Amino acid sequence: MPTSQPIPTLDDVARSAGVSTATVSRCLNTPGQVAKPTMERVMKAVEVLGYTPNFGARSMASKRTHTIGAIIPTMENAIFARGLQAFQEELHKLGYTLLVSSTGYRPEVEEEQVRALVSRGADALLLIGFDRSPETYAYLGKRNVPALVSWAYAPDHSLPSIGFDNRTSMQELAQHVISLGHRDIAVITAVLRGNDRAALRLAGIRDAMEQSGHAFGDLRVIETPYGISHGERALDQLMDGGNRPTVIMCGNDVLAAGALKRAKERGLGVPKDLSITGFDDIELARIVTPALTTVHVPHREMGRKAAQELVSILEKRGAGHSVALETKLMIRDSLSLPSR
Amino acid sequence: MPTSQPIPTLDDVARSAGVSTATVSRCLNTPGQVAKPTMERVMKAVEVLGYTPNFGARSMASKRTHTIGAIIPTMENAIFARGLQAFQEELHKLGYTLLVSSTGYRPEVEEEQVRALVSRGADALLLIGFDRSPETYAYLGKRNVPALVSWAYAPDHSLPSIGFDNRTSMQELAQHVISLGHRDIAVITAVLRGNDRAALRLAGIRDAMEQSGHAFGDLRVIETPYGISHGERALDQLMDGGNRPTVIMCGNDVLAAGALKRAKERGLGVPKDLSITGFDDIELARIVTPALTTVHVPHREMGRKAAQELVSILEKRGAGHSVALETKLMIRDSLSLPSR
Repeated sequence: MPTSQPIPTLDDVARSAGVSTATVSRCLNTPGQVAKPTMERVMKAVEVLGYTPNFGARSMASKRTHTIGAIIPTMENAIFARGLQAFQEELHKLGYTLLVSSTGYRPEVEEEQVRALVSRGADALLLIGFDRSPETYAYLGKRNVPALVSWAYAPDHSLPSIGFDNRTSMQELAQHVISLGHRDIAVITAVLRGNDRAALRLAGIRDAMEQSGHAFGDLRVIETPYGISHGERALDQLMDGGNRPTVIMCGNDVLAAGALKRAKERGLGVPKDLSITGFDDIELARIVTPALTTVHVPHREMGRKAAQELVSILEKRGAGHSVALETKLMIRDSLSLPSR
Repeated sequence: MPTSQPIPTLDDVARSAGVSTATVSRCLNTPGQVAKPTMERVMKAVEVLGYTPNFGARSMASKRTHTIGAIIPTMENAIFARGLQAFQEELHKLGYTLLVSSTGYRPEVEEEQVRALVSRGADALLLIGFDRSPETYAYLGKRNVPALVSWAYAPDHSLPSIGFDNRTSMQELAQHVISLGHRDIAVITAVLRGNDRAALRLAGIRDAMEQSGHAFGDLRVIETPYGISHGERALDQLMDGGNRPTVIMCGNDVLAAGALKRAKERGLGVPKDLSITGFDDIELARIVTPALTTVHVPHREMGRKAAQELVSILEKRGAGHSVALETKLMIRDSLSLPSR
């Protein structure tokens, strides 16, 4: 039988066990997915033929490209930059190359980019948040591409996530804002469509308001693309209307920096006349004057852990574990008691 | 002869002309690189066989992945972000997907990433600056991968560039600084190794000093990685030494923002006690207080034009044209007459 062939192949094992090569692969790689009798037949053939699972693993591994894809909403501002850089550095240590693609916050572009990365041979993908088309999830499942979600955390989801709870993180900041006495709150948020992180942060503010038992004015919400200039314009919209807020809570530090800049240009004292808060704690938050009260996201730790988990999923062929990282309130000078 | 075969192939043309298929490809794609007698022999075979260059072009085009790779030094700060986003948006309009890889400013990583992107099927590459190993250039030439350089401009180089003149741009700013009366100048620059943009900016400052005819103290130069915190530390080094500068010219806005932040923390008035300048005019430059005097780089225009040129090289198979974009001095409040 197989003795004429110096190194038995996967085909030999399949033929000998009377199963397909795919089944042999599954037995070796994801034994949990194979019926016990099949498993036993295959493992017996492996033994009889002297097929070396190591060799098999290596030959399958050689099909790997050691390339990981990441699809992020934007490269333009610093929100994803630091976490992604840490993700890349960790991947590099582990022997993987990172290829990044950005959707420009257009959810419809993501599916196209998932396909592009998979067909360019990406072994696995990092995705941001959970808000995407069912088609994209179906495609990933069908192609059996390991994927991990970051910048969000949802342990019950089919994909593992290494991130943080956007809703409770923002809720905690809002509770602090309310505890200072603010009742006229306005929000500048990223466009909510396709962005679960933004939607959850807004929900966190509403949660804190409801749970506080206080009476509030209408929560004015301005939805705008990310960007300094968008934050500037949103500040104008909020301050030109009647019933000015005493605090503007922004969905991220970039919008907050824009709002802060414009408030100062309008002659408003921050925080004397108006408090402004951010989210993310990117470097910008410490650079502006006054420095921003914000929510610290452990970007580097998140990127590093996401890289480790994704490579572990790939190499150990497990399902992956979700991890929630702690965020932290950063109380700085842009927030104080309300002016009135 | 070829009439038995319904559609003549590149092989048929090569055999008939007595050349390799690679030579036929070159005749069709980059005719300028082929000796005239060879060219004539091949084109005659094309004609006799009825080989349709269009069909050939299409069949080559179908091998294209419509993926463009870009390798940038870092994703972590905003220097490349805006230009790259514009590059991606323009590529998307033209039907291409962008995959980005970053070296973390380690030149030795770039060659690895060039290989990864090419073996993942990138049709063409965007590279930053010219300072890279001869091996990387040789690899690109051998694999015949179209590549374009950006963030730099060198019309005589073998690769086309869409960028700006780092040296004269910084020289112009330095001339302005000197014209205000500054004679004690210090520089905080990015690490020079593997970074021709940083080296050229530093050279531009020296040019302006030499050409001014004035006498200067020693030019103190601190070389440091990019990053706010590195700018902060460099400011301390410069101000803790004797012979304090009246102006610190920084290799980019990120370092300048860090230096500015630290100067203010040390109780120095900017620009009253110390002037600080940047380079790039990223959003950060307008956000800090006082706003940074800097050199405006037309990042969006550069990204857009680079995308158009690279796709044109790919689709029209030309050699590509180099374009120098204009930078512009942005005089803001961080620079004034010297304090002494």
